[in-house]
Amino acid sequence: MEPVNVRWYVEDVSSHCADIAIEGLPGVGHVGKLVADHLVNVGNAVKIAEITSTYFPPQMYLTNDAVLRFPRNEVFFVPAKDSQPSYIVLAGDCQSTSPEGHYVLAEAYVKIFELLGVKKIYTLGGYGVGHMVDKPRVLAALSSTDLKDEVVASGAVLNKEEPVGGIIGAAGLLITFGRLAKMSGAAFLGETSGYLVDPVASKAVLDVLEKLTGISVDKTSLNELAEQMLTEVSAIASSIQNKNAEDLSYIG
Amino acid sequence: MEPVNVRWYVEDVSSHCADIAIEGLPGVGHVGKLVADHLVNVGNAVKIAEITSTYFPPQMYLTNDAVLRFPRNEVFFVPAKDSQPSYIVLAGDCQSTSPEGHYVLAEAYVKIFELLGVKKIYTLGGYGVGHMVDKPRVLAALSSTDLKDEVVASGAVLNKEEPVGGIIGAAGLLITFGRLAKMSGAAFLGETSGYLVDPVASKAVLDVLEKLTGISVDKTSLNELAEQMLTEVSAIASSIQNKNAEDLSYIG
Amino acid sequence: MEPVNVRWYVEDVSSHCADIAIEGLPGVGHVGKLVADHLVNVGNAVKIAEITSTYFPPQMYLTNDAVLRFPRNEVFFVPAKDSQPSYIVLAGDCQSTSPEGHYVLAEAYVKIFELLGVKKIYTLGGYGVGHMVDKPRVLAALSSTDLKDEVVASGAVLNKEEPVGGIIGAAGLLITFGRLAKMSGAAFLGETSGYLVDPVASKAVLDVLEKLTGISVDKTSLNELAEQMLTEVSAIASSIQNKNAEDLSYIG
Amino acid sequence: MEPVNVRWYVEDVSSHCADIAIEGLPGVGHVGKLVADHLVNVGNAVKIAEITSTYFPPQMYLTNDAVLRFPRNEVFFVPAKDSQPSYIVLAGDCQSTSPEGHYVLAEAYVKIFELLGVKKIYTLGGYGVGHMVDKPRVLAALSSTDLKDEVVASGAVLNKEEPVGGIIGAAGLLITFGRLAKMSGAAFLGETSGYLVDPVASKAVLDVLEKLTGISVDKTSLNELAEQMLTEVSAIASSIQNKNAEDLSYIG
Repeated sequence: MEPVNVRWYVEDVSSHCADIAIEGLPGVGHVGKLVADHLVNVGNAVKIAEITSTYFPPQMYLTNDAVLRFPRNEVFFVPAKDSQPSYIVLAGDCQSTSPEGHYVLAEAYVKIFELLGVKKIYTLGGYGVGHMVDKPRVLAALSSTDLKDEVVASGAVLNKEEPVGGIIGAAGLLITFGRLAKMSGAAFLGETSGYLVDPVASKAVLDVLEKLTGISVDKTSLNELAEQMLTEVSAIASSIQNKNAEDLSYIG
Repeated sequence: MEPVNVRWYVEDVSSHCADIAIEGLPGVGHVGKLVADHLVNVGNAVKIAEITSTYFPPQMYLTNDAVLRFPRNEVFFVPAKDSQPSYIVLAGDCQSTSPEGHYVLAEAYVKIFELLGVKKIYTLGGYGVGHMVDKPRVLAALSSTDLKDEVVASGAVLNKEEPVGGIIGAAGLLITFGRLAKMSGAAFLGETSGYLVDPVASKAVLDVLEKLTGISVDKTSLNELAEQMLTEVSAIASSIQNKNAEDLSYIG
Repeated sequence: MEPVNVRWYVEDVSSHCADIAIEGLPGVGHVGKLVADHLVNVGNAVKIAEITSTYFPPQMYLTNDAVLRFPRNEVFFVPAKDSQPSYIVLAGDCQSTSPEGHYVLAEAYVKIFELLGVKKIYTLGGYGVGHMVDKPRVLAALSSTDLKDEVVASGAVLNKEEPVGGIIGAAGLLITFGRLAKMSGAAFLGETSGYLVDPVASKAVLDVLEKLTGISVDKTSLNELAEQMLTEVSAIASSIQNKNAEDLSYIG
Repeated sequence: MEPVNVRWYVEDVSSHCADIAIEGLPGVGHVGKLVADHLVNVGNAVKIAEITSTYFPPQMYLTNDAVLRFPRNEVFFVPAKDSQPSYIVLAGDCQSTSPEGHYVLAEAYVKIFELLGVKKIYTLGGYGVGHMVDKPRVLAALSSTDLKDEVVASGAVLNKEEPVGGIIGAAGLLITFGRLAKMSGAAFLGETSGYLVDPVASKAVLDVLEKLTGISVDKTSLNELAEQMLTEVSAIASSIQNKNAEDLSYIG
């Protein structure tokens, strides 16, 4: 096995080209991953390529049939629908286990995007703020200032001070390697506590992405996930409050 | 020394071929290692190959004669006996010190299996559950759904939810790399606390393996190890109970 | 991307040569970085080269326009002015994420210095002492004993016992790799607590560097940083004292 | 810089050959290092080679003149004297920062030994037992059982159970790589607390080495180090006892 291995699932790459690539790999709050997985699930997505790598964790996954498989990232093609554009989604299990691997893998992903004729890359992720966020902002970072107006118009926040410390992993590297390959784009990070898988932040990120790209997908299942999370968080909060009240009950 | 080095101990590989390969390298509770070592000890095992690697810990082992040797994994051939099939055992000291090494080593092991004509790979290990287990289940994960019926019939449990997080290291990677080389198989993980070397879980795994393969070995020494462990655990438990009773004795 | 990538920003390297190279990459208290960045900011600095590397953290930085860029180190040419010599500055974002990378990168930096005709390398950093320092000494370490007299005359302290444990990273490696390339020089480490970004230590280091090289720069902004730090430290100290006084007030 | 670099300091290697090589690199209690450094200091040692490596820490050392140098290991030739044999000493600053590097470096050291005609390798180190040891035993581990009698006769202890976990780093790897190159030898580990640099354990190891090889060196300075350590340990012990007595004085 080479350090990075790309396996194509379609013979005819040219019929699966698209201007837009969207990345959502695992990261803070799985904010980007939830969006990318959702786009694949609700779209009429066709798997066109699979990436395996010795930079991935040596941890084999179980499929629904209890069959073992390599950890992998996947590239899907979502065909155009009504007035919406077709696009590519990079989704999957993992990121690199080493600093070097992040560079090598991001460069490999961008080469795949080049073969698919991609012009714009949007990367999705979370920005951990350490506390629960009611209405998560979506922070953006750009490939170039050209995109400033449209990104702001789509509801994202541009702020040179945030995310503090820049962007770690694929969400940042795809933008910088993409620029070297003449692709423009932006990273969108939804504010999230950092403690939970956060579909609420994912919804905020998806809203921005839809406004920006003209993509529009059924969000029922993502909304359900978000409601479920809010119910659970609120149940935990109540339980803590009740506990505190009990602890103080001897005072009364 | 190359990253991975294979040294053959037999000139005539073709007379040491077998359909079945069984892996039991060190891991959680040493569940797989105990089974693999037991198969080597009680069978009429012939060492046919040795693997050393710069991915192994730089820690030299002492033999019974206080002679130093490289850490190594070994491949044994256990000849057919009565109605039982011959098989190969991969046993030894260690796994990789790095994520990359896990991939490289697993691929090397599968290449050895190919040279030995292996068709089926069974990997053995433990699944740490964080508490003592009276009757350990044996969780299975497959190379393909074809093996489902026979694996379940042999007493293993198939559950896409377990092991949570998949399988780390050789036990998982040999199945996935094996499939690329047209070998089918399954990983069997015995439930274990994760805190102790656990011959009880090993016995459960060996039971499944025997039913599945028709292999049948004398288990006296493994039973003794298991009884010894149960006696020790129960002694510790009593001692803790007595201590607690003493601590409370002032109450009475 | 190669492990180390050098991109030149000027066509005519020969018109940007200088005898002196000054390094100030991130490190303890950012003492060296503050000086190097200051020299670039107040001088008429021309960026002549940029280094990116897979040894750098996979963390993309935001520019003032919220545009993402690779982490990078930069080489600047500061032209001669009045009676002052021209010089090269190596400044930037980061050092290596791995031990090996430190060696590989330092060797690459020295090769750049060679192309620029550098004869003397001065590396700048901090020496963490674990407590606040009123008047930070500047410890020096040399490429050879030839430089002893001029280094001591410039106000630095030569002491074979300090820094304890030698010098880690670029500040040390540029001197040793430089010597292999026939460049002489010295590392200057300003005493610092190690807990704070420390412009006071940076000022002390810059003073030594100026005396040694004949370079003289406007220090207004560095002085302001230093005063700001002292004000903040003193505010924190007062607040702690007041708090202690309050805590004891019930005694009175 | 290559991963491992060997620089020879003598033109005529053949006049610096010796049957015996002794290794004492940094490790537990610096037991081996103290012996190797002592042999170099009291013998008429000639430096014949120097090893630098990107596997070494990126930490430059200060010489007595505050001149920076690479971390390095060194090979010395100690000429025959009276009836004593000549020998080679491998001493120095460090071991590898990575598991892989331990293998690569040990193989490189053995290649140097081969060029020098070495037939026997004795490696020296400490065995940390977690408590102060009055009369440290010297545990041995062999390249082959042939050496058993002479090693035991020299006062070392052969015990397949100790050191528990085998021998990590150069002290073990030089024996196993040496055997591949037809050199025999033994590792000698002096019992030591593991908390202190321990010249007492070093003396015990040197005693064994002298009996085994016929080498005999002036031990004055090593004895002084040992006495100094014992005085300091005993002063600390008294101070703790006095402190305890004071703490209890209110009882009286």
